[in-house]
Amino acid sequence: MALVVQKYGGTSVGTIEKIRNVAQRVARTYDEGNDVVVIVSAMAGETNKLVDLANAMCEFPNEREYDVLVSTGEQVTIALLSMCLQSMGYKAKSYLGPQIPIKTDSAFSRARILEIGEENIREDLKGGTIVVVAGFQGVDSEGNITTLGRGGSDTSAVAVAAGLKADVCEIYTDVDGVYTTDPRIVSDASKIEKISYEEMLEMASLGAKVLQIRSVEFAKKYDVVIHVRSSFNDNPGTLVMKEDAEMETVLVSGVTYNKDEAKISVMRVPDKPGIAARIFSPLSEANISVDMIIQNVSTQGMTDLTFTVPRTDLKKALKIIEEAAQGIGAAGVTSDDKVAKVSIVGVGMRSHSGVASKMFNALSAEGVNILMISTSEIKISCVIEDKYTELAVRVLHDAFGLGNAS
Amino acid sequence: MALVVQKYGGTSVGTIEKIRNVAQRVARTYDEGNDVVVIVSAMAGETNKLVDLANAMCEFPNEREYDVLVSTGEQVTIALLSMCLQSMGYKAKSYLGPQIPIKTDSAFSRARILEIGEENIREDLKGGTIVVVAGFQGVDSEGNITTLGRGGSDTSAVAVAAGLKADVCEIYTDVDGVYTTDPRIVSDASKIEKISYEEMLEMASLGAKVLQIRSVEFAKKYDVVIHVRSSFNDNPGTLVMKEDAEMETVLVSGVTYNKDEAKISVMRVPDKPGIAARIFSPLSEANISVDMIIQNVSTQGMTDLTFTVPRTDLKKALKIIEEAAQGIGAAGVTSDDKVAKVSIVGVGMRSHSGVASKMFNALSAEGVNILMISTSEIKISCVIEDKYTELAVRVLHDAFGLGNAS
Repeated sequence: MALVVQKYGGTSVGTIEKIRNVAQRVARTYDEGNDVVVIVSAMAGETNKLVDLANAMCEFPNEREYDVLVSTGEQVTIALLSMCLQSMGYKAKSYLGPQIPIKTDSAFSRARILEIGEENIREDLKGGTIVVVAGFQGVDSEGNITTLGRGGSDTSAVAVAAGLKADVCEIYTDVDGVYTTDPRIVSDASKIEKISYEEMLEMASLGAKVLQIRSVEFAKKYDVVIHVRSSFNDNPGTLVMKEDAEMETVLVSGVTYNKDEAKISVMRVPDKPGIAARIFSPLSEANISVDMIIQNVSTQGMTDLTFTVPRTDLKKALKIIEEAAQGIGAAGVTSDDKVAKVSIVGVGMRSHSGVASKMFNALSAEGVNILMISTSEIKISCVIEDKYTELAVRVLHDAFGLGNAS
Repeated sequence: MALVVQKYGGTSVGTIEKIRNVAQRVARTYDEGNDVVVIVSAMAGETNKLVDLANAMCEFPNEREYDVLVSTGEQVTIALLSMCLQSMGYKAKSYLGPQIPIKTDSAFSRARILEIGEENIREDLKGGTIVVVAGFQGVDSEGNITTLGRGGSDTSAVAVAAGLKADVCEIYTDVDGVYTTDPRIVSDASKIEKISYEEMLEMASLGAKVLQIRSVEFAKKYDVVIHVRSSFNDNPGTLVMKEDAEMETVLVSGVTYNKDEAKISVMRVPDKPGIAARIFSPLSEANISVDMIIQNVSTQGMTDLTFTVPRTDLKKALKIIEEAAQGIGAAGVTSDDKVAKVSIVGVGMRSHSGVASKMFNALSAEGVNILMISTSEIKISCVIEDKYTELAVRVLHDAFGLGNAS
């Protein structure tokens, strides 16, 4: 008998009929002799409706009240799923964040989980009850409702699995697992059987939207095995787990891309201490996250500084940077919002040389010009003109032999 | 400076625009120097939508989960109203039932309030915060969410007002107050300036749907003055309060009616102890509430028993009664679902004779036949053929001089 934590996302519980299907899958897992804890998201579209209400009410909704509002979406789902399980003859009980409790800090709308109370759940499981938990929400030390940010139900599930030392945390979604790249771009993209936490973190942060990044960090910290799979079939999905020897033999696990990028260059910046801070501090204060930063070799005490920001923040960033550039005596600021980032990820590249040059050659062979390069131990990213994005992804996927056919 | 509790019903908070209007009224009350606690219902139609979801999910929704589901309606409203007040520059904070806490028993979907925690609210009020409370919901001793039944927000408001010893509990609705009768039937029905708890209880139980009965019982018990008024204008409404000398001078305060009635007669029942129990116990077990019961004088050890039930329960009741009648050897069962009840209510009738005969005369003068009569200290009800309902109401309203014109 195992303890199984299952999480179903918004599309999996999007209608009464789909909730019924989820109930059947949960029941089957229970009938196989497992203890089952289910975490659910709001029905697809509901959270957006609630957000629209908030925005219709006022321009800058108070964050505490925003969380009170949007947390109702999951509350509806846990009630419906528990009802359904009970009508099928199973013992089931719903839990809100504060009832577990899922204790968080007080950062409304992006709270972090601090601790999971396991006593209530343990008791219910002992009595043969299926436990149904509202994802995405928690409670702070003052008793205020908090939410964990978009995709937060993934983190709820992993945190509950960690707290209960569950045998597996199954994340059900509308895709079969984690793919070597976006199947909409590369038709023979293949499902990855298992992937390390580190690779998954890189994939997630680079734009593969299967799991919330924080949930992977949490899983890594507490060594929770995540099984990403589809709620619409019984295919095995992708295991996200600790790195093993087998994983290292694979040079590159996946190719990702992000089109939501813009590039800013500050020209002829005086090359002296404190200058970078004067450029990037005001951006961080404005809550704009800077991704890649490249500083060229200095000539005559001057250097050029180039970095990327989310495309949606470009206008705001430019205004800030133009002021800062004047303040430090730079020659000028240029920007480009027609760029994209393509990346290859793999723990195998740590122990293999030549991966970077293989990437650059593959791109140049197709005439794709590389504008910026950034590397980590298990990732290489290139900024390119965004019109080449799909081409670059296909070329790289092929070059590293990731297709089903290969 | 007074402590004012205001309750806004579903129609008063039915849209974003209406919530904005409520916020303005709340702010005005605050600006006048009062401490303000606001209780709100779900936006009009929302609770029905949630109930529909539950019924679509399964035939007999589990009651605990039903309450988890339907309590989300009020949660949405408190968040929106608090946001709005804050965007107007006021300090405001929302409270769910469990956060106050509003402690109830565990009778899901019809819970009774046991106790109101006042500490959190007091502290907020002291700091100049407007407190916004979710009506209709509470929490039991196990931490489960409970709801108070339809109209329960009225009771939440009165209970909070009682707990805080508020100066007044204003119940905002879509009518101007309590009327001498239904203005849709009698065009010159007049607004009652003040009415005693006892009269209001009779009016409410007889079908005037302005306040939930339990809220009036609560108000009576804790001596809370209720001010029923419209959220769409500034007219003074109706005060529901302790009986005073002035009220006694009014013979009849109002005329009510109820068309949702059916009459059942059990013919030639043996007149011996225990028979009534054998008839009415199975009805009560089936959750059918019996209203008027009339037993005629016994002849030859036999009597006829007539009573009324809600029309929607007639079929169910007949099935039960026909079995019971056989069991006790009654001669037969007859029924009539084309009956209605008209009633006059007034504390003044306690000290004035001739009210009943005036009522019967007024009805008979118009040819309205009386099928059953039942009286209490401050109320006289007659069951009549339902086609005469409107006529009877108009005649009685006129006979006791209740119109605006009189």
